[in-house]
Amino acid sequence: MEFKHKTTVRVRTFEIDSQGIVHNSNYLKYLEIGRVEYKRNLGYKILKNGLFDDGLKVVVVHNSIDYKGFAFIDEELNIFTRIAWIKNSSFCFEQKIEKVKDGTIVCEGKGILVNLNPKTNQPETIEEKFIIEMENFEGKKLQITDNK
Amino acid sequence: MEFKHKTTVRVRTFEIDSQGIVHNSNYLKYLEIGRVEYKRNLGYKILKNGLFDDGLKVVVVHNSIDYKGFAFIDEELNIFTRIAWIKNSSFCFEQKIEKVKDGTIVCEGKGILVNLNPKTNQPETIEEKFIIEMENFEGKKLQITDNK
Amino acid sequence: MEFKHKTTVRVRTFEIDSQGIVHNSNYLKYLEIGRVEYKRNLGYKILKNGLFDDGLKVVVVHNSIDYKGFAFIDEELNIFTRIAWIKNSSFCFEQKIEKVKDGTIVCEGKGILVNLNPKTNQPETIEEKFIIEMENFEGKKLQITDNK
Amino acid sequence: MEFKHKTTVRVRTFEIDSQGIVHNSNYLKYLEIGRVEYKRNLGYKILKNGLFDDGLKVVVVHNSIDYKGFAFIDEELNIFTRIAWIKNSSFCFEQKIEKVKDGTIVCEGKGILVNLNPKTNQPETIEEKFIIEMENFEGKKLQITDNK
Repeated sequence: MEFKHKTTVRVRTFEIDSQGIVHNSNYLKYLEIGRVEYKRNLGYKILKNGLFDDGLKVVVVHNSIDYKGFAFIDEELNIFTRIAWIKNSSFCFEQKIEKVKDGTIVCEGKGILVNLNPKTNQPETIEEKFIIEMENFEGKKLQITDNK
Repeated sequence: MEFKHKTTVRVRTFEIDSQGIVHNSNYLKYLEIGRVEYKRNLGYKILKNGLFDDGLKVVVVHNSIDYKGFAFIDEELNIFTRIAWIKNSSFCFEQKIEKVKDGTIVCEGKGILVNLNPKTNQPETIEEKFIIEMENFEGKKLQITDNK
Repeated sequence: MEFKHKTTVRVRTFEIDSQGIVHNSNYLKYLEIGRVEYKRNLGYKILKNGLFDDGLKVVVVHNSIDYKGFAFIDEELNIFTRIAWIKNSSFCFEQKIEKVKDGTIVCEGKGILVNLNPKTNQPETIEEKFIIEMENFEGKKLQITDNK
Repeated sequence: MEFKHKTTVRVRTFEIDSQGIVHNSNYLKYLEIGRVEYKRNLGYKILKNGLFDDGLKVVVVHNSIDYKGFAFIDEELNIFTRIAWIKNSSFCFEQKIEKVKDGTIVCEGKGILVNLNPKTNQPETIEEKFIIEMENFEGKKLQITDNK
């Protein structure tokens, strides 16, 4: 997997559990930070209502994480993010978290998001301009057919 | 201090820090649970916009906690809540957290909340009916003058 | 899916995001509460070091969630938990979260945990007595071969 | 108040409550980030057991926050931190959080920490070298008598 986007966080004192390692739920927070920064890098920002200023209403329908190692208090972590594919109304983030100090992989994650019609809350086709934008950034075709 | 309201929580795995004790910020969450349940006990509930269905817009302007002991993973804690005083547009929660198993005190907290005009966001006099309601529940006079 | 274990939580004010719904990472916390209570129901409890008093060292290696609906502030949620399968050194929790008020499904989750040798941190065969215990509770065979 | 230490955070999507503002408990997390970075700036770092590598065992005995304004999703915040005073076995952090974009003050906080004997967990006199270190950084006398 190749990633064109990276952002960095530091594990904080309140993200550790009683085994001295990052609590498993906090990685979903790190992955979301990665997704927000990926989007910011494309030129968008979050509005006060929690949506981006691209006019879309996008919700997470699936998240999964494979934990590969332990991250400890105060460690710096690189969060790598890419778009893996785009279907008619959904797209998929693939992500990886590594330790800054030595590149040890901590976890791999995947999130599937769906584009909704802001009024009906029903899935809506992703506009061509957003597909082009993501494909340009990733440097390859991302669109796949829904029955793939 | 005498308390007429109590609610109980259990310390969860993700609320512990690397010293094996509840992280200091999580007590503010427990105190808020106590305040919400106190209000629920008076017959109100929270709406989707985060405000109670009493029509008021109330915000926290001060919180303080004195940590008296350590709470550990999986322990059950009693959160005691009372209204200590009511001024013109503000009122004060006094709270105490104890271990269920032996009554050991874990912390004492205080929160001051201000009633705002929902349109102007400026402090607004608390209506008499709410004062009576709180005084009835606490069984004593709570209203004090602002320059006290 | 049939579930023999259920526990209930209430969505708290600090678990909501700016879209007014439970933040996607908080469901992993709810799922963990479900797992801890499942284990408590079998007679175990968590020690101060974050491990259960069954002498095992178990870590989460995979979590996934499918979000099926939105949970809102102050709603009560039922967390259903069962063991889906047991392999040589790993086992799988299957879980479902529903609204108490009407049974609307909010999300489905899955977690795979691995039993480690506490000294070497290498995967270790799960003892027969624990398998029997889980199978007795679930009322069916859970053990499957690793290459299934 | 003059501050010689500053660190910056960005408000994250999971730190917002249903009123669209940072939840009041999350400021304690920001304040702790400020304190950790203050200490790092003096040359120390946190060990896996949650203590700093200065050999001290220090615990928080008091926290208070005065909320002065609302911070919104995605805003960058400057956290200013200073030591206000040092007594025999305790010392006090004074802190302020401002918006990066315009310097609007969001809140002011105070934390009192106590130095414990790591074996007895009883308060222990803070060694002269640590006092000198903090006074040198702050550029003034910090030590006050306990009965002040």
